Amino acid sequence: MPSKYVYAFGAGSAEGDGSQKDLLGGKGAGLAEMSRLGVPVPPGFTITTEVCAYFQEHAGSYPEGLDREVDQHLAQLEERTGQRFGDPNDPLLVSVRSGAARSMPGMMDTVLNLGLSDSIVAALVARGVDERFLLDAYRRLLTMYGDVVLGVPHHDFERILGDARKRQGATNDFELTPESLRGVVADFKRIIAEHGKPFPQEPREQLWGAIRAVFQSWNNPRAREYMKIEKITGLLGTAVNVQSMVFGNRGSDCATGVAFTRNPATGERRVYGEYLTNAQGEDVVAGIRTPREIAPVDGGAGLGADFPEAHRELEAICARLERHFRDMQDVEFTIQHGKLFMLQTRSGKRTGPAAVRIAVEMVEEGLIDQREALGRVQPAQLAQMLAPEFDAEQKKKAIAAGNLLAKGLPAGPGAASGRIALTAERAAEMAASGPVLLVRAETSPEDIVGMHASVGILTSRGGMTSHAAVVARGLGKPCIVGAGDLDVDEHAGELRVAGKVFHEGDELSMDGTAGEVIAGGIATRQSEVLRVILDGAEPSPAAKAFVKLLTWADGERRLRIRANADTPHDATVANALGAQGIGLCRTEHMFFDDERIAWVRQMILAEDEATRTAALSRLLPMQQKDFEGIFAALSGLPITIRLLDPPLHEFLPKEEKALRVLAEQMGIDAAAVKARAEVLAEANPMLGLRGCRLGITVPGIYEMQVEAIVRAACVRAKAGERVRPEIMVPLVGTVQEMVRLREMTAKIVKRILNEEGLQLEILIGTMIEVPRAALVADKIAEHADFFSFGTNDLTQMTYGYSRDDAGRFLPLYVEQKVLPWDPFQSIDVEGIGQLVRLACERGRATRPDLHLGICGEHGGDPQSIDFFEEVGLDYVSCSPYRVPIARLAAAQAALARRTVEQRPKPSIATAVAAAGSALAEAVASIAGAAKAV
Amino acid sequence: MPSKYVYAFGAGSAEGDGSQKDLLGGKGAGLAEMSRLGVPVPPGFTITTEVCAYFQEHAGSYPEGLDREVDQHLAQLEERTGQRFGDPNDPLLVSVRSGAARSMPGMMDTVLNLGLSDSIVAALVARGVDERFLLDAYRRLLTMYGDVVLGVPHHDFERILGDARKRQGATNDFELTPESLRGVVADFKRIIAEHGKPFPQEPREQLWGAIRAVFQSWNNPRAREYMKIEKITGLLGTAVNVQSMVFGNRGSDCATGVAFTRNPATGERRVYGEYLTNAQGEDVVAGIRTPREIAPVDGGAGLGADFPEAHRELEAICARLERHFRDMQDVEFTIQHGKLFMLQTRSGKRTGPAAVRIAVEMVEEGLIDQREALGRVQPAQLAQMLAPEFDAEQKKKAIAAGNLLAKGLPAGPGAASGRIALTAERAAEMAASGPVLLVRAETSPEDIVGMHASVGILTSRGGMTSHAAVVARGLGKPCIVGAGDLDVDEHAGELRVAGKVFHEGDELSMDGTAGEVIAGGIATRQSEVLRVILDGAEPSPAAKAFVKLLTWADGERRLRIRANADTPHDATVANALGAQGIGLCRTEHMFFDDERIAWVRQMILAEDEATRTAALSRLLPMQQKDFEGIFAALSGLPITIRLLDPPLHEFLPKEEKALRVLAEQMGIDAAAVKARAEVLAEANPMLGLRGCRLGITVPGIYEMQVEAIVRAACVRAKAGERVRPEIMVPLVGTVQEMVRLREMTAKIVKRILNEEGLQLEILIGTMIEVPRAALVADKIAEHADFFSFGTNDLTQMTYGYSRDDAGRFLPLYVEQKVLPWDPFQSIDVEGIGQLVRLACERGRATRPDLHLGICGEHGGDPQSIDFFEEVGLDYVSCSPYRVPIARLAAAQAALARRTVEQRPKPSIATAVAAAGSALAEAVASIAGAAKAV
Repeated sequence: MPSKYVYAFGAGSAEGDGSQKDLLGGKGAGLAEMSRLGVPVPPGFTITTEVCAYFQEHAGSYPEGLDREVDQHLAQLEERTGQRFGDPNDPLLVSVRSGAARSMPGMMDTVLNLGLSDSIVAALVARGVDERFLLDAYRRLLTMYGDVVLGVPHHDFERILGDARKRQGATNDFELTPESLRGVVADFKRIIAEHGKPFPQEPREQLWGAIRAVFQSWNNPRAREYMKIEKITGLLGTAVNVQSMVFGNRGSDCATGVAFTRNPATGERRVYGEYLTNAQGEDVVAGIRTPREIAPVDGGAGLGADFPEAHRELEAICARLERHFRDMQDVEFTIQHGKLFMLQTRSGKRTGPAAVRIAVEMVEEGLIDQREALGRVQPAQLAQMLAPEFDAEQKKKAIAAGNLLAKGLPAGPGAASGRIALTAERAAEMAASGPVLLVRAETSPEDIVGMHASVGILTSRGGMTSHAAVVARGLGKPCIVGAGDLDVDEHAGELRVAGKVFHEGDELSMDGTAGEVIAGGIATRQSEVLRVILDGAEPSPAAKAFVKLLTWADGERRLRIRANADTPHDATVANALGAQGIGLCRTEHMFFDDERIAWVRQMILAEDEATRTAALSRLLPMQQKDFEGIFAALSGLPITIRLLDPPLHEFLPKEEKALRVLAEQMGIDAAAVKARAEVLAEANPMLGLRGCRLGITVPGIYEMQVEAIVRAACVRAKAGERVRPEIMVPLVGTVQEMVRLREMTAKIVKRILNEEGLQLEILIGTMIEVPRAALVADKIAEHADFFSFGTNDLTQMTYGYSRDDAGRFLPLYVEQKVLPWDPFQSIDVEGIGQLVRLACERGRATRPDLHLGICGEHGGDPQSIDFFEEVGLDYVSCSPYRVPIARLAAAQAALARRTVEQRPKPSIATAVAAAGSALAEAVASIAGAAKAV
Repeated sequence: MPSKYVYAFGAGSAEGDGSQKDLLGGKGAGLAEMSRLGVPVPPGFTITTEVCAYFQEHAGSYPEGLDREVDQHLAQLEERTGQRFGDPNDPLLVSVRSGAARSMPGMMDTVLNLGLSDSIVAALVARGVDERFLLDAYRRLLTMYGDVVLGVPHHDFERILGDARKRQGATNDFELTPESLRGVVADFKRIIAEHGKPFPQEPREQLWGAIRAVFQSWNNPRAREYMKIEKITGLLGTAVNVQSMVFGNRGSDCATGVAFTRNPATGERRVYGEYLTNAQGEDVVAGIRTPREIAPVDGGAGLGADFPEAHRELEAICARLERHFRDMQDVEFTIQHGKLFMLQTRSGKRTGPAAVRIAVEMVEEGLIDQREALGRVQPAQLAQMLAPEFDAEQKKKAIAAGNLLAKGLPAGPGAASGRIALTAERAAEMAASGPVLLVRAETSPEDIVGMHASVGILTSRGGMTSHAAVVARGLGKPCIVGAGDLDVDEHAGELRVAGKVFHEGDELSMDGTAGEVIAGGIATRQSEVLRVILDGAEPSPAAKAFVKLLTWADGERRLRIRANADTPHDATVANALGAQGIGLCRTEHMFFDDERIAWVRQMILAEDEATRTAALSRLLPMQQKDFEGIFAALSGLPITIRLLDPPLHEFLPKEEKALRVLAEQMGIDAAAVKARAEVLAEANPMLGLRGCRLGITVPGIYEMQVEAIVRAACVRAKAGERVRPEIMVPLVGTVQEMVRLREMTAKIVKRILNEEGLQLEILIGTMIEVPRAALVADKIAEHADFFSFGTNDLTQMTYGYSRDDAGRFLPLYVEQKVLPWDPFQSIDVEGIGQLVRLACERGRATRPDLHLGICGEHGGDPQSIDFFEEVGLDYVSCSPYRVPIARLAAAQAALARRTVEQRPKPSIATAVAAAGSALAEAVASIAGAAKAV
């Protein structure tokens, strides 16, 4: 152990500095750095996180010499403040606060006014200090100390206060008379004593009690659970900050407040915050008095009017801190008798748009460079900016009209409006006649169908990893969980909230990005960013920054980004959002078109070869037109076209009645149609006759599709366009499947190019989605120009999880930590990752120029993209609307690798943890912003 | 190339010997060895397989010097026989035959009487040689030469012969007068000439023409296909045998015949065969005259009566050949004017019982040692001896009554009787009211349900790898394919065969081991071997040999053999058949018992915890009783008990009506039951909520099962028995699943053992059946005492094949060689094998004493067992009736490894080919025996 455990700060200097977050905690480091900068900080000292680690490892004892160091620093503090601990005439009062390198709920937070005692209060009163102020400070100390140090239930104190208010006929605590407060203090001391030990009258004993409580709280279940969820590892412990008290509640020349150096919601460069005159910090939070804005946008009076000097100083300090820390800061301050004191500074949480705008503008201001800016924005924050949003005017009106009903955890971003259903069954029924919001106390696997049917999901219980949250994110639906104010009574068919009663069928709205539940319907629309990029709308500063940031990302990333798109419209959107080609064009989606499905069914139900061929020849020109359209939309970018993948029975109606109608339409015997449909039905369609198995057993379909692709390519090529089709065989598991289908494909390509007299490069490759394909990738690569990892199916088969069914246990698995995360959301590096890596290595060993990509849904997931960068894929392909997210994530992954080369390589676990907490960070950011605003 | 291409034989010596099969082919090596032994062999010479290889590689030209060598050997042959090629007075006549190291259908077979010509026939007639004999020999030469050398269609010759018979009013060819034969010869020569080239009159030209035809036939499609199917690799080519003619048809002192040195059907040690007086070899095959037995069992007159001298000599030669070759021989002989000539000797094909009896008796006779005996029996031959068989008396009577309708390829062993159905749909319908045989021209994927419903499958078309054959073997059902005499008319609902007409519902019988289709029903019964072992029936010599052979196998094998058994009865059977424990006891089978299913359903449908717990507590004592019974039956052997594996919906009725009845019985609302059933239904049950996923989400079931196991173990232990339960968690894919379920299991085990005051060793392990489990086996092994490979599921998931659905494409895949074999029958070493090997290595790296076994159906497959020996598993577990097969296969695998250590390691492909042809060998063996008998 080092010999220094305690670091002083304040009075224009500090023993530590801002770089020592690990040792001093975030708060301690911030205080030290501010002291060094000459920012007015009430002096104090920090006991290091190493002491906490020692404390944990040595059953609650302290390292040798700590007591002496604390004594020395206390003496120095007394000297600096000119006050003495326990001095009845001018006592030193301190706050004791925890502070780890990362902020963490669950740890002991704060004990204020430490140093007061019966005799000191009495002495000060005797010296003429305001008795109400003193007793109020003392009862606060008793409450906080009793609660967090001595374990007396908080509500015991609440009850006594309530009784006192009742007796006096007061509404608020601050109305209590000194007489009432005397009774309260006496009662507080009594119940503390009853609970075990009387409140210690000796300030040093108070201090050591508070220090011990902070260290003990490091290891409490809530803090541990939080670290587990957030995958926080490698922290030594918490530091303890002991700081001399300043008071914002000693008169009208006092105030307390919080501020952000820029607007945390919009990113605007302007100090943003609020304050209360003659108040202590906790009064701001309690919300009894309405705080005032520091600098009202409407130009009204603010801090500058009330405290012109302090306001000027605050503005200057904010500017200085931001320049110094090179990031937007979140500060706390107190004005005591007109003098400004800074109590805390830290990086401010912010919304997605704010994060993007601040990062980009700070580059323009020369504060940070582009690479740093790229690291300042979480990909999930871009997702916020892309999610559908409410019409801002309508939402504003609804909230102004008092329609904001409740807030919860924002578990899935985006806005949705719909009629509420209180059971999954009702949701499924009601969905037929319009959008439905599913509202439940909590969801369970049995609700899965209803969740599919709903446009948004809302629960009163559960956290960010609850069943509802996990499933909703998997489905990409807006979701709010843990909205505790909702009283969901499915038996009565009623939702009670904010004193109102809603029945099934009543309309609600929810903002999954902000976690807000609003009465009535609100029109939703495309996000601003999409309106700017796709429709050319006038951009806000944040949207401008969005576009700029992605341009920078493009300059840094190695991975190319493609999109999954099946139509010319999707291809156009993907193009606009920066896709460098189509990584997955699913031809079966074209089969479901109204005009075609009849021919598709004819083909499937054909009883002889001639009928089948006839049906296929009707489909050929239609598919060809599809491809012509997509090729045109791509303007020369490559496109990977997957041959038919799903089993044929997916194209037949499920209901017997519909089958009869179909038979009539087609002039076939109904019994024959039914028999054929039964024959085609499968016990496990996921593992049945689909993909290349169809290509081999019913070759006509693939032959038709290949012909359509090549003919379409020829048409566009003759029109002078560049076309770069890549024909992809799905579900290959054996070398022979690839050999045969490559042969079949190549033959048709050659024949048609010969007929057309054209020379086009058309690649032929395969998906790697069957585990066996990864194992024999070296051999498959002999016959494939490219591999595209189908990580959806690869995950399904390697885990043995059907996506359609895993909703019954996956959320529980994630909640109970059987799985660290949903492997369909972020790739399972430990297991599936082995197969991906193996297939890359073996494939490239055979064919060094093998083109490697991924077209599963992991292609749009930042954590997965980091892994794909690591294994050296050439591109990722994701849904068009995730292309911007992938562009940023790919840049971050590339930058992380570049940094890694210069320092010890982090374990995958760490890397994953860093990336994985993106969503939670975003959530906390918004929650923080909401609280701040 | 070496300088020697031609090897002489005959006259008591030979240039080559029996060890040179690769160089001289099987036939040539046999002839050389017989010559060296002093056995009377018509002299001749063999052109080596190396010449064939040269011929193939050099576009049909011969190596330098071959013509000279052939000339030299021809001159020597002339000297030895005292005859000359083309000599009109005493011409040398030869046969030309192909002969590779392995016999192979499709290659050119035989040209006899080569050396005859117009002028020679005329000269001999002039010298008084029987003209009819000469013309008959000449027309045979013209037919064979025209057909196989000159490519004239065989039926052209048949037509001319037919016309000649008609003109003369004769029924058989041998009635044709010299005059008629003269016309036939003239017509034969005419059509040969019309076809391109006239028949060569020069004997040397005839000879080189025949040699070329043999070499060319090596590469014809039929021969190549056969090699592909039989996985024959590494052969250089075929040899050509040129041998002086002897004639069995030159008078009543001549004869021709075939013999086995022991009975190829029963293995009895007694020369067995048949002969025809005054006949040539092909007359025996043609079946116009009935051959006579060499030594009739009833003691009647045989060869000894007709040719006492030749018979004695044949007996002596057979004994000598068998001693020399140390195996049962299949010989061909000709008696010319009383003198015996041997034309061929080779290892004789034999039935399963014969193979076992011969191998064991040869050890007892000191001819071979035990290890050699173990190599002489194919595991599939044991399968024949274990398959159900017809009551021998009844079958004999049926055949004697002329009820044998047709023969086909024996694609699946065993006997079956039932009413015939001509479509799969009818089969499925009829199956409800008794056993059904499905009879089709050929089957297709759409017939799969009907195939499941039938007790046997019979087709008129297709080969050993046709859809019907592959599916039937997969289902373990008797099957005959390619029974070409069957005329299946599904539209008329008729089966026409042997002049009879059968309608759907008529009764037929089929012997899948022999390939026989028989009219009417025949009682089937357990095989003799099982009656001996299980019921103590009096053993036949073959059954005695069966038991002895397996005892020897036990002495050689390293792998232990366990059985999959769910009931005390199964456990008893497994014990009797030599199982060393139970490798898989499926607890869910117990759930289907009539008495329990109601409680199981109660448990599943429970709407609250109390109801579920109540149902489980009713099931507990029942499961405990099951385990007590199985423990008792095992008498101290270990048993691996798998906790519940299938999804819960498997225990609910499928039909809505049955659900309603269930709801009534249980006093639950029908709608609620239906809703619950719908909630439980899965899109892909194979990949759904089952196995350990149930154990984690619905822990009560596993807790009950573990308690039942431990309580049962305690009961038996207190009764003084040794109990060795091993609790197996199914479907583990992640380490955490294993951690949690091991913890849960260990806790219950500890609690109950404490309660009972007992100390029992109870292992806790897992199946490796999810691909991911193999990938993280190192980590899983930290928490598992054993691994048992579930290769069924591992194959399903790694290939992405659902066994229930793969019937639609797997047979086609096997037929078209997309897959080398059905991976559910024999393990896919290339793909799945990688995962098995990986899991073994990683598991043992973590825990060197990790116990490794396999309990998928591959556990009873010889080819797979060879692989499991290679990767070093501790045991294989298979169905009780396959335990004997596994014992032999394990011994063979162990012996192969011991041999391998002394010589270059064979490639897996070779090893697999050797094992893989077992079934085809058995088939050919029976077909051969049938032909011989």
